[in-house]
Amino acid sequence: MSESLVQRRARLLGPNVPTFYDAPLHIVRGEGVWLWDADGRRYLDCYNNVPHVGHCHPKVVEAICAQAARLNTHTRYLHEGILDYAERLVARFSGSLETVIMVCTGSEANDIALRMGQAVTGKTGIVATDNTYHGNTATVSQLSSKKPPIGGYAPNVRRVPSPDSLRPLGGSAEGQAQVFAGHVSEAIADLEASGQGFASLILCPFFANEGFPDLSRGFLDPTVEVVRRAGGILIADEVQPGFGRLGSHWWGYQRIGIEPDVITLGKPMGNGHPVAAVVAKPEVTGAFREAFGYFNTFGGNPVSCAAAMAVLDVLEEEDLVSNAADVGSYALQRLRALQHPMIGEVRGAGLFLGVEFVGEGLAPAPESTARVVEAMKARGILLNRLGRHYNCLKIRPPMPFSRENADMLVDALAEVLAEMPK
Amino acid sequence: MSESLVQRRARLLGPNVPTFYDAPLHIVRGEGVWLWDADGRRYLDCYNNVPHVGHCHPKVVEAICAQAARLNTHTRYLHEGILDYAERLVARFSGSLETVIMVCTGSEANDIALRMGQAVTGKTGIVATDNTYHGNTATVSQLSSKKPPIGGYAPNVRRVPSPDSLRPLGGSAEGQAQVFAGHVSEAIADLEASGQGFASLILCPFFANEGFPDLSRGFLDPTVEVVRRAGGILIADEVQPGFGRLGSHWWGYQRIGIEPDVITLGKPMGNGHPVAAVVAKPEVTGAFREAFGYFNTFGGNPVSCAAAMAVLDVLEEEDLVSNAADVGSYALQRLRALQHPMIGEVRGAGLFLGVEFVGEGLAPAPESTARVVEAMKARGILLNRLGRHYNCLKIRPPMPFSRENADMLVDALAEVLAEMPK
Repeated sequence: MSESLVQRRARLLGPNVPTFYDAPLHIVRGEGVWLWDADGRRYLDCYNNVPHVGHCHPKVVEAICAQAARLNTHTRYLHEGILDYAERLVARFSGSLETVIMVCTGSEANDIALRMGQAVTGKTGIVATDNTYHGNTATVSQLSSKKPPIGGYAPNVRRVPSPDSLRPLGGSAEGQAQVFAGHVSEAIADLEASGQGFASLILCPFFANEGFPDLSRGFLDPTVEVVRRAGGILIADEVQPGFGRLGSHWWGYQRIGIEPDVITLGKPMGNGHPVAAVVAKPEVTGAFREAFGYFNTFGGNPVSCAAAMAVLDVLEEEDLVSNAADVGSYALQRLRALQHPMIGEVRGAGLFLGVEFVGEGLAPAPESTARVVEAMKARGILLNRLGRHYNCLKIRPPMPFSRENADMLVDALAEVLAEMPK
Repeated sequence: MSESLVQRRARLLGPNVPTFYDAPLHIVRGEGVWLWDADGRRYLDCYNNVPHVGHCHPKVVEAICAQAARLNTHTRYLHEGILDYAERLVARFSGSLETVIMVCTGSEANDIALRMGQAVTGKTGIVATDNTYHGNTATVSQLSSKKPPIGGYAPNVRRVPSPDSLRPLGGSAEGQAQVFAGHVSEAIADLEASGQGFASLILCPFFANEGFPDLSRGFLDPTVEVVRRAGGILIADEVQPGFGRLGSHWWGYQRIGIEPDVITLGKPMGNGHPVAAVVAKPEVTGAFREAFGYFNTFGGNPVSCAAAMAVLDVLEEEDLVSNAADVGSYALQRLRALQHPMIGEVRGAGLFLGVEFVGEGLAPAPESTARVVEAMKARGILLNRLGRHYNCLKIRPPMPFSRENADMLVDALAEVLAEMPK
């Protein structure tokens, strides 16, 4: 018997390397919102946000090829690529978010952002939500460790309960914003009392990994006030909601109505090319560079900048942010028309949508959600699940997703739900 | 007056972003061992190791283009690209270095390697040399901080004096290996006494940033014995010496004759494409994955693997490791024939060579070294300096560097030295 791909993976990549789905997919080709497996079967990609402007978008591929053939080197030489990109990027931000540090991954970006908070305040404490994910470096992964790292949890991290639509903190949707701010305030007081001091609050302004609860604009106002009063800085991790995914705004922080000091960018930025960035106020970037120094060999290289620039070009030329708003609201409306007792809530914004499945008394239904994901895959529709209880469908397709694609998704979901026990 | 590139950089990238040379270079094109600036002036690149098989090598560019146009996604789907590359890569290693974790930067690789030591031993302490650089994450940069990070140095890091050719530890070249091992032993004892315990020793087996002192094979044997006796693991950072640069061997650890548990790879791996890796014994990778979990969105994507595979192809097809050995020893011999009282030592291996400049009584001569670097640039030759005192020329060209290129370099250096005060 020849060795299977799964066996080769275990041998070469080590044990416990996760794959999606009960029977992992062997994907060999991508185009737009479509993926093909090795048997030639086509799948509608309703999950991947990295190929932001569509799998293998020819403009992005062309930009990468052209620049890779001309020059690829580091930022200790001058090059227009990084400057032209940075200029174009910061123009998309409000306020004084005017400086950019280019890196390769969202993890590297958040690793810098946390140090920015420390550089500005001279303190080390970090507050994050308790069901988040900001990356995989030793420092950043402390924010999301489900089990204690070797040596124990870092003494400078506090986790606060994340907001929820169906089970609001404090028991009522109206009071949730104040209750959340109260938790942040307690965490800050605890950091100050412990001698770490408070440096920053980091959060995804869409609370993506928390299951993107339905929160109204202004929800974070009391929290921001608490952070400002304590002299800390506010970091918005835009790796998931950023680059127009939410349709109504280019960035998640604009939708919820806050003004962060630091923004981190990642996954969709280069359509799959490893590029990420930190956008910050000049004084924050200056304090970081002064306190820590920093150089990233690959960060801001001409090819990465060309890839990232092409993504901006395509977003604008194909009007994909408007598309996200249009198709997103169409899909949301169609999802809300679905009838099944398991549906606890349908929510989301733009092309980041979810359906939360529950049992009796709003009890999370992760197993049923997993069955829906598998049944959708069997019908050629790729999505996944997330949230504290993994009971929320994660629908987050490439941005050229059309109304026709949305129909295909919702029709298949209706069929799958019809076969689920009521 | 229009804004200069330097002014735009300061505005967009923040203050204190370093460039090379008194007047920074504006590089716009690269090919093989050559770089061109915006005025069309050509430079012989004797410095950059990232474009390992030559700037913009057509085979690497072609591999990137072909795969970017076909599929670029993550490793939660199965794909042969990462498996074929991992198989090909581990075949280049001795012993049981049989598993690979693909990431995007050498910093990410070392950030994992340090956690591997912790996962295997259940302890947290790390020993590194005192003039090293292993990367820029918050955790890894603790190994090389010249000034205390905000919040102070991590309690689990100990730095030991690095070996030196001209000023050997303990005063004699013969005794240096034992003295170095003694420092490591003391650091381990201190970590154990402090309650951190000893997890790993990390070093570049060529001691590149330490100025690559001339050390004989076996130099690290007493150190390895100390590490083994203490139950720690040995991490070899091959970001600089790896992929055949030293000519005689594919990896720095093979040249000095040690058997590490973990190898980290970076810069040259994808010829500029952001790809890096950790190669480790299966039980080490298993312990890491079990203790920390790990997923890297861009790590091991099909395009990164195609770029890395093309680098291996070109290294073999063009016999570049033999070329490094041949041209390196030719260049070393020519450099050793140079006469100037400022020359303290000429050393190196393969295409990683250096000339250490000193004054009276072997006093380091960093200013003179800087003048040499600038004068070489004026003659169209790019190199730089390194070492504890920044008084050593760093000659580390792309691997297709020829004897003719070496002649051009050494002839220019002879002219520059002739103009330096004696």
